[in-house]
Amino acid sequence: MPDPTLLETFPTPEDSPFVIEHVNDEFTSLCPKTGHPDFGTIIIRYAPAKECVELKSLKLYHQSFRSEGIFYEAVTNTMRDDLAKRVEPRWLQVITEWRGRGGIHSRIIAAHGEVPDEWRRG
Amino acid sequence: MPDPTLLETFPTPEDSPFVIEHVNDEFTSLCPKTGHPDFGTIIIRYAPAKECVELKSLKLYHQSFRSEGIFYEAVTNTMRDDLAKRVEPRWLQVITEWRGRGGIHSRIIAAHGEVPDEWRRG
Amino acid sequence: MPDPTLLETFPTPEDSPFVIEHVNDEFTSLCPKTGHPDFGTIIIRYAPAKECVELKSLKLYHQSFRSEGIFYEAVTNTMRDDLAKRVEPRWLQVITEWRGRGGIHSRIIAAHGEVPDEWRRG
Amino acid sequence: MPDPTLLETFPTPEDSPFVIEHVNDEFTSLCPKTGHPDFGTIIIRYAPAKECVELKSLKLYHQSFRSEGIFYEAVTNTMRDDLAKRVEPRWLQVITEWRGRGGIHSRIIAAHGEVPDEWRRG
Amino acid sequence: MPDPTLLETFPTPEDSPFVIEHVNDEFTSLCPKTGHPDFGTIIIRYAPAKECVELKSLKLYHQSFRSEGIFYEAVTNTMRDDLAKRVEPRWLQVITEWRGRGGIHSRIIAAHGEVPDEWRRG
Amino acid sequence: MPDPTLLETFPTPEDSPFVIEHVNDEFTSLCPKTGHPDFGTIIIRYAPAKECVELKSLKLYHQSFRSEGIFYEAVTNTMRDDLAKRVEPRWLQVITEWRGRGGIHSRIIAAHGEVPDEWRRG
Amino acid sequence: MPDPTLLETFPTPEDSPFVIEHVNDEFTSLCPKTGHPDFGTIIIRYAPAKECVELKSLKLYHQSFRSEGIFYEAVTNTMRDDLAKRVEPRWLQVITEWRGRGGIHSRIIAAHGEVPDEWRRG
Amino acid sequence: MPDPTLLETFPTPEDSPFVIEHVNDEFTSLCPKTGHPDFGTIIIRYAPAKECVELKSLKLYHQSFRSEGIFYEAVTNTMRDDLAKRVEPRWLQVITEWRGRGGIHSRIIAAHGEVPDEWRRG
Amino acid sequence: MPDPTLLETFPTPEDSPFVIEHVNDEFTSLCPKTGHPDFGTIIIRYAPAKECVELKSLKLYHQSFRSEGIFYEAVTNTMRDDLAKRVEPRWLQVITEWRGRGGIHSRIIAAHGEVPDEWRRG
Amino acid sequence: MPDPTLLETFPTPEDSPFVIEHVNDEFTSLCPKTGHPDFGTIIIRYAPAKECVELKSLKLYHQSFRSEGIFYEAVTNTMRDDLAKRVEPRWLQVITEWRGRGGIHSRIIAAHGEVPDEWRRG
Repeated sequence: MPDPTLLETFPTPEDSPFVIEHVNDEFTSLCPKTGHPDFGTIIIRYAPAKECVELKSLKLYHQSFRSEGIFYEAVTNTMRDDLAKRVEPRWLQVITEWRGRGGIHSRIIAAHGEVPDEWRRG
Repeated sequence: MPDPTLLETFPTPEDSPFVIEHVNDEFTSLCPKTGHPDFGTIIIRYAPAKECVELKSLKLYHQSFRSEGIFYEAVTNTMRDDLAKRVEPRWLQVITEWRGRGGIHSRIIAAHGEVPDEWRRG
Repeated sequence: MPDPTLLETFPTPEDSPFVIEHVNDEFTSLCPKTGHPDFGTIIIRYAPAKECVELKSLKLYHQSFRSEGIFYEAVTNTMRDDLAKRVEPRWLQVITEWRGRGGIHSRIIAAHGEVPDEWRRG
Repeated sequence: MPDPTLLETFPTPEDSPFVIEHVNDEFTSLCPKTGHPDFGTIIIRYAPAKECVELKSLKLYHQSFRSEGIFYEAVTNTMRDDLAKRVEPRWLQVITEWRGRGGIHSRIIAAHGEVPDEWRRG
Repeated sequence: MPDPTLLETFPTPEDSPFVIEHVNDEFTSLCPKTGHPDFGTIIIRYAPAKECVELKSLKLYHQSFRSEGIFYEAVTNTMRDDLAKRVEPRWLQVITEWRGRGGIHSRIIAAHGEVPDEWRRG
Repeated sequence: MPDPTLLETFPTPEDSPFVIEHVNDEFTSLCPKTGHPDFGTIIIRYAPAKECVELKSLKLYHQSFRSEGIFYEAVTNTMRDDLAKRVEPRWLQVITEWRGRGGIHSRIIAAHGEVPDEWRRG
Repeated sequence: MPDPTLLETFPTPEDSPFVIEHVNDEFTSLCPKTGHPDFGTIIIRYAPAKECVELKSLKLYHQSFRSEGIFYEAVTNTMRDDLAKRVEPRWLQVITEWRGRGGIHSRIIAAHGEVPDEWRRG
Repeated sequence: MPDPTLLETFPTPEDSPFVIEHVNDEFTSLCPKTGHPDFGTIIIRYAPAKECVELKSLKLYHQSFRSEGIFYEAVTNTMRDDLAKRVEPRWLQVITEWRGRGGIHSRIIAAHGEVPDEWRRG
Repeated sequence: MPDPTLLETFPTPEDSPFVIEHVNDEFTSLCPKTGHPDFGTIIIRYAPAKECVELKSLKLYHQSFRSEGIFYEAVTNTMRDDLAKRVEPRWLQVITEWRGRGGIHSRIIAAHGEVPDEWRRG
Repeated sequence: MPDPTLLETFPTPEDSPFVIEHVNDEFTSLCPKTGHPDFGTIIIRYAPAKECVELKSLKLYHQSFRSEGIFYEAVTNTMRDDLAKRVEPRWLQVITEWRGRGGIHSRIIAAHGEVPDEWRRG
């Protein structure tokens, strides 16, 4: 079950704004309709305010979706909400890219805060 | 025959704006002049307002073009109109990319509503 | 319905052995179980004896599978048999490559006559 | 000889603005200095106002350059002028990309009307 | 738990030898040491004798490894044994390719029966 | 008109066997049925005996096909015969690869003399 | 130990603004938690004011991180600070891209001064 | 020795603004410190006012750097100055990309006049 | 210092021959002449007899070269000897690929025992 | 002028046969007809007997062709002869690949001694 308490943070080493991006090519959850596995890539991008997300804890948080039946849109918005709450970044973007089923592959883009122009495209 | 009644929707799980993109690499219709098959990729991109398009129903809607003699431009604008009517999104973009005939390959881009700057290029 | 009478030939312009390969990236038939479309690439490779297959007639023959519910293996072996009968080549190879469903993509390789070592891999 | 009378049009099926792009990877003309063939790709991109260019006629128009000794810049500007005159689009862009000679490959970009920001780069 | 009873077969439609290849890009199991997920690609290649493996049943068989803690070598040899027993092919090859951990990615190749020269490399 | 007298040679600088390969990505001729241009790549590969083909003369020889209506097979076999006659190599291979029409692209492979195993695949 | 005194500069040869970019694909440091090596790419991009960084000294400066246990974020911000201090550029951007561990790969982007719009994305 | 007198021009065939880009993948000069060869790609991009640079003369101008010991920055700014003076364009951009030494590869971007937004990134 | 005692093994789970390949993209050692770092990829390929090399121990063994000044050829042959001694495989192949210095990149291939034909190329 | 005395060797560190490959992507010489520069890639592959070629000396030897007017075939055979004489390998292969002129790019393959089957293709 997606477990946001797995997310750990550490104080940002830098006061001036900078951007952190983590790309997980090995994400899997379950389709809530068919029970078949979904495979995708998760991109987390944010400008830290006071805290940064700890990398290994992010990996464990992602793994907590492994046996969850959950729609693409819900994965994306759940991660956005969980990370926004734990990390309280200046801004945050969650992009999920899903390998196709039946010839259609999908991408969902959600944001928290004011994403700068140059990152809006995802 | 293209059949918009095949399109089903579900309520968006999220009030704040986000973007959904579906890419179908396996689209085929017929050339209305020669009857030969056309092969292409269809990209649907939109920001949901109240409803999201259901993925399997989108696939069936695409398949309803399989035996239809229809021009590139008409495929694009028909899909734009059908989806805009059923989904009533904040904005919507339909991009069709066609494998070449006689050395020329084509791309058509149509929109509904105010597409944000970062997506305009298609 | 797959129609081998569509296949036309012309006399080979050359007595000494040579190899001809035609690759059709735009093949589609139907899954006999689900009725959903299958998309694939068809590779025809052969050394002509007396006749060569006419290119446009090959295209029409491939299009005759468009509304047929037929398994991967049957597409491959049917083409092998039809072409071997009409063209009577020194040797012939039919390779079908299928875009995936449910994450699995497939390839089938069938032959007629003695395929030289360097072509056996498909 | 480049022959603009080959260009045919049909009424646009849609009143609201949309974008059409045709890419011809198989263009050839002659170098006016050496007589050697030039090979290139021609990209035509436009927003139709009342008329769209008919695809097969565009192909024949391109083929009419085959035996013409003509500079890169003149190919580009001639096409821009011919298409602008026949199609009277909201805006039009002609991009020609040329395979190298002596290690240098080139690209020419010409426009008619007010090309939107997102397309200016070519 | 890997469950070979999920594997179903159907009679081969063809008496003369031919080759079938299925590639599953979406395989996941667990590392028996750390419990972390392993992600990989599974290639099954064989020449059917009397039976072919049914594609959907192969997918379900692969999914039965999802919660199993099992080494790369055991995945490969288990699949080889299970498939050889159920399908009784002329020859069979199982190739597993694993996305890296700690910078090292791996590939395991196992065979049943006499694999022809042209396929030995995997 | 294909003109073999354009081919010039120079004495090979080396008695022991070696291999020369020339790849022309910019070949065009005409379809004898429709008059439309064909575009392709020509690969000439040979082991010289006494003479090597001069590179610029090969280019001019290729250009002499520009206005010729000629089938793929005839281009390939004509070049094989012309080069074999002028260059008298130990062995020679002519491979022509053609950009597709109607979704099918083709490759023709012809040889003169005993091509070593490692080159037979083309 | 990261040693900023290794950085040498030379007077910029040009008064008007221009942009310099150095990409080091061969960077390695150590993970401060596990002691395992981290591998990455470092991109330095800046507009010189009075001084340019000398290329070989940049390489030696990068090599001084080889035995240092240091987090991704600290590598990025340390380089930004060291270079800003030594080179005093109009603006400076440091982008670090890290090969993945456990399936997650990361990118950090830090800046000094007012980076022009077209470079902000990194 | 870099010789700007090699640069020849011809009157632009078009009054309205358009863009010309020449990419030379085969540039070489010498490192002024070590005497070892540097290899790079030179991109010249400009909007002609009254004159265009003649392509063959550009090639010869580039070749005049072959035996010159000269820094990356000086190659870039010298070309910018020479071309700005001879061609007097509306705007001009010179981008040099250098194959790496010691694992670091570099890019320098210089401009003359007001480069439009869409080209600023180089 | 390269430390073969780091290499651990486990009993092979399978009596019949199979092939294991480990690819480490993140190898670094030092040039014994200049002290500058070398970066490369190490491919270990073998058919186990009684023992398999444990993956994490292989990684640590590779890391033990990090501060060693050692030539390409010595890295390759040292690994071949260490692995042959510890693992006693049916056959073993060590391939090292090195990122270039001064424009030249290199590959070294060493073997132990009788490598089957299909693997000899490396 | 090509200067074989630049080639230095060192004793092979290993008695049993192994293979060394050096790839130089940055080779340039001059066309003896036109004086224009030729750019290419040089691949040296050999099994050392008693001596290995020293890498930096190979680079300097390659640089000695920089101002030489010399045909493709002569570069290849000269290198083969010079290296065979200095290194006295078990076998040696020299492959030169040349960037195109006038749309034709070339490859020359020469050998010394008995090249094993798996390397013959170059």
